[in-house]
Amino acid sequence: MQGLMMNYPLTLQHAFNRATRLFYRKEVVTQTEDGLHRYTYADWGKRTMQLANALKEAGVAQGDRVATFAWNTYRHLELYFAIPCYGAVLHTLNIRLFPEQLVYIVNDAEDRLIFVDGDLVPVLEQIADRLPTVKLYVVMGQPPYQPQKLHPVVDYEDFIATQPTTYTWPELDENTAAAMCYTSGTTGNPKGVVYSHRSIFLHSMGVGLADGPGLCEQDRVLPVVPMFHANAWGFPHAGVMMGSSIVMPGRFLDPLRIAQLMEKEHVTLAAGVPTIWIGLLNVLEKEQFDFSSLRAIVSGGSAVPQSLIEGLARKNITIIHAWGMTETSPLASIARLRSYQRDLPAEEQFRTRAKQGTVVPGVDFRVVNIESGDEVPWDGQTFGELQVRGPWVARAYYKDAASGEKFVDGWLRTGDVAVVDADGMIQLVDRTKDLVKSGGEWISSVELENLIMGHPKVLEACVVGVPHPKWSERPLACVVPKPEFAGQVSAEEILEFLRPKVAKWWLPDEVIFVEAIPKTSVGKFDKKVLRAQYESRLASQS
Amino acid sequence: MQGLMMNYPLTLQHAFNRATRLFYRKEVVTQTEDGLHRYTYADWGKRTMQLANALKEAGVAQGDRVATFAWNTYRHLELYFAIPCYGAVLHTLNIRLFPEQLVYIVNDAEDRLIFVDGDLVPVLEQIADRLPTVKLYVVMGQPPYQPQKLHPVVDYEDFIATQPTTYTWPELDENTAAAMCYTSGTTGNPKGVVYSHRSIFLHSMGVGLADGPGLCEQDRVLPVVPMFHANAWGFPHAGVMMGSSIVMPGRFLDPLRIAQLMEKEHVTLAAGVPTIWIGLLNVLEKEQFDFSSLRAIVSGGSAVPQSLIEGLARKNITIIHAWGMTETSPLASIARLRSYQRDLPAEEQFRTRAKQGTVVPGVDFRVVNIESGDEVPWDGQTFGELQVRGPWVARAYYKDAASGEKFVDGWLRTGDVAVVDADGMIQLVDRTKDLVKSGGEWISSVELENLIMGHPKVLEACVVGVPHPKWSERPLACVVPKPEFAGQVSAEEILEFLRPKVAKWWLPDEVIFVEAIPKTSVGKFDKKVLRAQYESRLASQS
Repeated sequence: MQGLMMNYPLTLQHAFNRATRLFYRKEVVTQTEDGLHRYTYADWGKRTMQLANALKEAGVAQGDRVATFAWNTYRHLELYFAIPCYGAVLHTLNIRLFPEQLVYIVNDAEDRLIFVDGDLVPVLEQIADRLPTVKLYVVMGQPPYQPQKLHPVVDYEDFIATQPTTYTWPELDENTAAAMCYTSGTTGNPKGVVYSHRSIFLHSMGVGLADGPGLCEQDRVLPVVPMFHANAWGFPHAGVMMGSSIVMPGRFLDPLRIAQLMEKEHVTLAAGVPTIWIGLLNVLEKEQFDFSSLRAIVSGGSAVPQSLIEGLARKNITIIHAWGMTETSPLASIARLRSYQRDLPAEEQFRTRAKQGTVVPGVDFRVVNIESGDEVPWDGQTFGELQVRGPWVARAYYKDAASGEKFVDGWLRTGDVAVVDADGMIQLVDRTKDLVKSGGEWISSVELENLIMGHPKVLEACVVGVPHPKWSERPLACVVPKPEFAGQVSAEEILEFLRPKVAKWWLPDEVIFVEAIPKTSVGKFDKKVLRAQYESRLASQS
Repeated sequence: MQGLMMNYPLTLQHAFNRATRLFYRKEVVTQTEDGLHRYTYADWGKRTMQLANALKEAGVAQGDRVATFAWNTYRHLELYFAIPCYGAVLHTLNIRLFPEQLVYIVNDAEDRLIFVDGDLVPVLEQIADRLPTVKLYVVMGQPPYQPQKLHPVVDYEDFIATQPTTYTWPELDENTAAAMCYTSGTTGNPKGVVYSHRSIFLHSMGVGLADGPGLCEQDRVLPVVPMFHANAWGFPHAGVMMGSSIVMPGRFLDPLRIAQLMEKEHVTLAAGVPTIWIGLLNVLEKEQFDFSSLRAIVSGGSAVPQSLIEGLARKNITIIHAWGMTETSPLASIARLRSYQRDLPAEEQFRTRAKQGTVVPGVDFRVVNIESGDEVPWDGQTFGELQVRGPWVARAYYKDAASGEKFVDGWLRTGDVAVVDADGMIQLVDRTKDLVKSGGEWISSVELENLIMGHPKVLEACVVGVPHPKWSERPLACVVPKPEFAGQVSAEEILEFLRPKVAKWWLPDEVIFVEAIPKTSVGKFDKKVLRAQYESRLASQS
């Protein structure tokens, strides 16, 4: 027996209509080179519909991929809605990728138009002659010089200027593709995740949950996380749906500018990777700001260090740790204290809040033994791979035949190694491929790294497993001393520091001092390089 | 082009799994004749799965309707999940209906089992011989005497006692029927609304939104609104999904008991019709309670008087006005002050909060001219019929061929007359069928009633339109004086009181003093009766 409820599709058109009908007085503020640009959702709605008319005139068909190569700005927010509400697919290009990766991605997606911020024109110019599918470039704002290789090319304002300010959106099935975003895996080519209207709608509801980030009309939300990075964690979509005011940082991401913007615009909720907030904390040590409007910062993308949670708490700032991936839209879990944890000692509360938290409603998870596939006990100790599923989790990659290994039995294999405590709070301890397998037992490289980085003379540490004739693999630590201690710290000193903290068999077989750890294009430790470099380092051991 | 996201169905099984896996420490507390019954979601989950096993043993098939005739208790919460997660349809019977209506409803739904609270056995016994589809009665708690006419009959605890405490839920499509509830319209037979898993899942997300009631894990929620009344406004479903503790009042609904329960159980959010809270305010005038845990009361079902909002505010209690219908799951709109309204004078804030508010994300609305069908301007003055649509709004009634007139072009005609202000805040002013049409213009009967009830000597007032030879219809007011003013108030006094407040042509042609206003089974003014009674009252006018 079927329910008798309306087949009302869950689409972004619903969110667009809310913002323009109910919240037209609310504003979108963008930091630009010329100061703050501000307009209301009423203006935004008209321009977004002008843009839709312009897409039509440019011959964009439903299902076509239309790319952006841009910072977080009001124009990007217009694109965020005009393209999917029109029935095309918004493809946000990561402006930080290497040219080779960009060429691959644009061609894989077969992007038809690219909207590019003026200052980013030089980057696109390097590759434009290798993008045969692109039929038009639209430049937003002033480029540093007249583009030579982008053709045809048009200015964004000219593109939309003469268009009508109303547009009748087509009826869309909720499973229609709305947006896509490529993941920058460390191995193989980037892979496209294709979001549907339904998945973005539901994810926006998740972002609005009191038990999620709780985004609401009262908020003035600042997404520092880029709009090309997993939908800026859904804040632009959810902000429009809830009628929040949105504050856009443009390309001005240094912590001081962010702090000034937060104060001036009475930001209530800000979102970005931990690096930003480490920088902010640094700024706050030197200068006072009035953050009385700020209710919380949401952070993720990489693990939020407990020290950051504590440091910001000393400044009366609450940071909420969340976790997700491009494949999960991204909000999958969030660390919030339970009602029965409010009276825990402060230290224990910080420790709980430093975990990745538990899944938001809609998302389901399990942690399974890497070899047997059985669920591990929720004892806070037993490792396993984290797997998730839900209506805003990808089921496959775009045009990717190898999706099979990432998606099993309806679950996404995250590639993250986690432990779960008795409350269902997830804590990531490593990536599956970075675990060190020694004598049949697993060692977490991340846990060792975090411990070593707690040493007062250490700046950075990276642990990798290298082949060992007897134990199969053993951990090897590469350590960068703080500049003032260069040459003044010994391997034995590091091991001595670790000894009381870990099991004896976890101790790295070697501690090697290096000047810098190699990094990937997104700034993570490039363990592949280190593993190759030290592959035979322990070959003669026994 | 389609999105590549998982086809993860939105079902109540997801909510069940969350509560039992993540929130098993949280509790469900029920007021019983023997004091408070309390257990955890862990216990609840086991018993719910025992119940599912028992349904199977009783031969319940997927899609079968299984009815409840019960108060708000932990057993009812077990039924709320066991039945739909099993794949059957939970049918909540309104215990306050007349026997004839109950017979009609049970037969229309073809209920197969009825779960009945012990104290309600006598009500069912009156009609049991007219319920041929019912194959089993399950009695919850002690009946006042051994049931004579319910057969076969079994005690609830016996029914589940020997069953296993685990159950593997079947895979369900999200559009599968999960629950049904009949609306008690004032005309014609009651009509069944059939909720799907999807609609209840999405509605639960709506209840969890920060911009909705914001139900969350931190809450200890008290649904005073009955579980047979539009899913207790979704609080049991959303509470389980969010992991809130749930406090159930049982059959003890007098305001003093409710106040004591709220204090003792540190209730954070309570929900019920205005009558309950008018009673509570009365209690609070005489006795002090510690309501420091209470963050808000959600109220609806009938309009929340501004005087109640103000009265509770004086006791530091926030009441949130929400609106919906059985057909809308029910949450459709909620009155929350916008960010830019926080500095309004208190009086204006109260006036705004007394409106029905604006639609929650997911629900769409329009207000259309009753004759032309065109949208009315949002000027706070122009009347029209409120129509809504959304994924948790009914598209038809069960087995009802006449659904057509209630559902047009994908919209539900609510039968409510509303005005909308410039912020999209809806204010109901009447029922379409109760509007008075005088000389081609509409007069709101409710607005006149509210004004008359503002007279210090008036207890109740009901205005109906009666046929008039010249104006087609004219308003006629039936007024019940307060007991101490019986016989001491004149029609002229009432008209004098109204004159400065309404247009001249709104003044009732007659004011008739009566001892009581006839009421329907759910306690609303029965205007049908009054209209019939005074049908020819103005026939000789000109």
